[in-house]
Amino acid sequence: MGNKQSYAIIGTGAMGGLYGGLLARSGFEVHFLANSDAQHIAEKGLQVESPLGDFHLQDVNVHSDVSQMPSCDVTVVALKSTQNHLLSTILPVTTRDGGIVLVLQNGLDVEADSARVVGEDRVLGGCCFLCSNKVGPGHIRHLDYGRIVFGEYLADPYGKPAPGLSDRAQRIEAELMDAGIDAEATDDLLLTRWKKLMWNIPFNGLSVALDASTDEIMKQQDSLALSEAIIREVHTAAVGLGVPVPESWIQKQIDATKKMVPYDASMRLDYRFGRPMELDAIFTNPIAAAATAGIKMPLVGMMLQQLQFLNARNLQD
Amino acid sequence: MGNKQSYAIIGTGAMGGLYGGLLARSGFEVHFLANSDAQHIAEKGLQVESPLGDFHLQDVNVHSDVSQMPSCDVTVVALKSTQNHLLSTILPVTTRDGGIVLVLQNGLDVEADSARVVGEDRVLGGCCFLCSNKVGPGHIRHLDYGRIVFGEYLADPYGKPAPGLSDRAQRIEAELMDAGIDAEATDDLLLTRWKKLMWNIPFNGLSVALDASTDEIMKQQDSLALSEAIIREVHTAAVGLGVPVPESWIQKQIDATKKMVPYDASMRLDYRFGRPMELDAIFTNPIAAAATAGIKMPLVGMMLQQLQFLNARNLQD
Repeated sequence: MGNKQSYAIIGTGAMGGLYGGLLARSGFEVHFLANSDAQHIAEKGLQVESPLGDFHLQDVNVHSDVSQMPSCDVTVVALKSTQNHLLSTILPVTTRDGGIVLVLQNGLDVEADSARVVGEDRVLGGCCFLCSNKVGPGHIRHLDYGRIVFGEYLADPYGKPAPGLSDRAQRIEAELMDAGIDAEATDDLLLTRWKKLMWNIPFNGLSVALDASTDEIMKQQDSLALSEAIIREVHTAAVGLGVPVPESWIQKQIDATKKMVPYDASMRLDYRFGRPMELDAIFTNPIAAAATAGIKMPLVGMMLQQLQFLNARNLQD
Repeated sequence: MGNKQSYAIIGTGAMGGLYGGLLARSGFEVHFLANSDAQHIAEKGLQVESPLGDFHLQDVNVHSDVSQMPSCDVTVVALKSTQNHLLSTILPVTTRDGGIVLVLQNGLDVEADSARVVGEDRVLGGCCFLCSNKVGPGHIRHLDYGRIVFGEYLADPYGKPAPGLSDRAQRIEAELMDAGIDAEATDDLLLTRWKKLMWNIPFNGLSVALDASTDEIMKQQDSLALSEAIIREVHTAAVGLGVPVPESWIQKQIDATKKMVPYDASMRLDYRFGRPMELDAIFTNPIAAAATAGIKMPLVGMMLQQLQFLNARNLQD
């Protein structure tokens, strides 16, 4: 595989801080773009608590001004998708000629904004199965899980064969694994995304609509039954679109969430801290995709309407 | 019509206090059963603010102990339906031989609990189209509207002809109107109840799920659209059960709510004050009735599941 690739991490939060930190600790050249935390990290470094081992990085290549960043082999988009309007400024600077962009954002078709900037053929997307929170400036607390599954992005994927396992995805996989990250290159990103939606849609949605953590949702019978009904509706949409999510994935989401440490889904944190919620990525895009195949999602649609109301009020206050 | 009938008002809250107060002011013999407010009302009387004219009643026949109440011609059940377990103690005392029970409670089939005590043939039911709150002990603030529509109760009404307009309903209608109350005896209580559900289900439910007043719900586009979708689902259930609610009633609910003064639906107040919500009457019973005709109510079902979760947490705290 030759020399190690360099990485630009766009967004130094719960996810970018953790994965970028692990890469940097392992000797990769990593450049972080941070916003409010940049000054703190430049002075005090990056602090990571993790079941993989706690660590502190003192000398971090952290930038608050994207124009000062070097171009890298791989740009990892670790921003919230609600910030994607920034990508047209960021990606041309951080991504070298021929370099690639790995979009690690929640939801569906979140790669479209990056593809518009650098071209569809230079974009990979991925999902993180991760419980991690930023608990202070430059301070990441990784709680549980941590797997990244990623692969080649197709802008209009339904009814087409999966793009297959690319060399460049496998190279990134090897490097992430070198850094101690549970990484898996996949030949079918779309399948991965819909599987992840079967968690993100019910549990992000209900965590805000019910103002509840995952364990509260799982232990009350009505919210448990509603979670399962929503998961089932998302599964039906995926299958109807030709995405082969196995039926057993429904129960797996329930079982995994029951076993999970009590956790605030990211959307709940966004709502609590008055930040916009990732409603387009997690709700609107899947509903729109399902609609192209004539599939209705009444429960998810109702949840989106409730969240749109709460989001509008939250941002207004 | 002969002598005026005597009335026992069971529950001296926003609704019982108003209508009982109006009857008493107009010279009817009215006995009130009150709980926490009984002492206050016995000493300070009943204070009513209303667009019909503010008034104060000093000498009120108020009781905190049902065993001290006389039996009356008409017992008006103005309790929350969540208190219906009390009726087996109350109704035999307050209702004279041959007297009747008028159940003015929200929801569907709320008369069943009274019918079990006094017999189906002695029960009338009614809906109040009323914006009124109890703002302090013995202090009622009537804000808007005020119509009561009531009629004969049938325990198993679907597919049967409406029971028709009875003499006793017309007598009560005349007496309520004498007291300045906008009362209407109907030959089809079931139709009235389903029409009212088309308001109560969406706006009570959303007021709690979104923690919002009616005007907030109406002015945001997503919550407005969701309200309309829920109203439509209730309408579809009614029509499927053979209850002839006109299509135009859907838009009427939207228009009336837009014009309504900003208002906290009663379920929102119950939730806020830590009281049980009337979920069986307003949600479970209509869903069960629809199911007997094979009609699904996915949005109302999801709303109920959310409210069951919120109710359980609220009563636990």
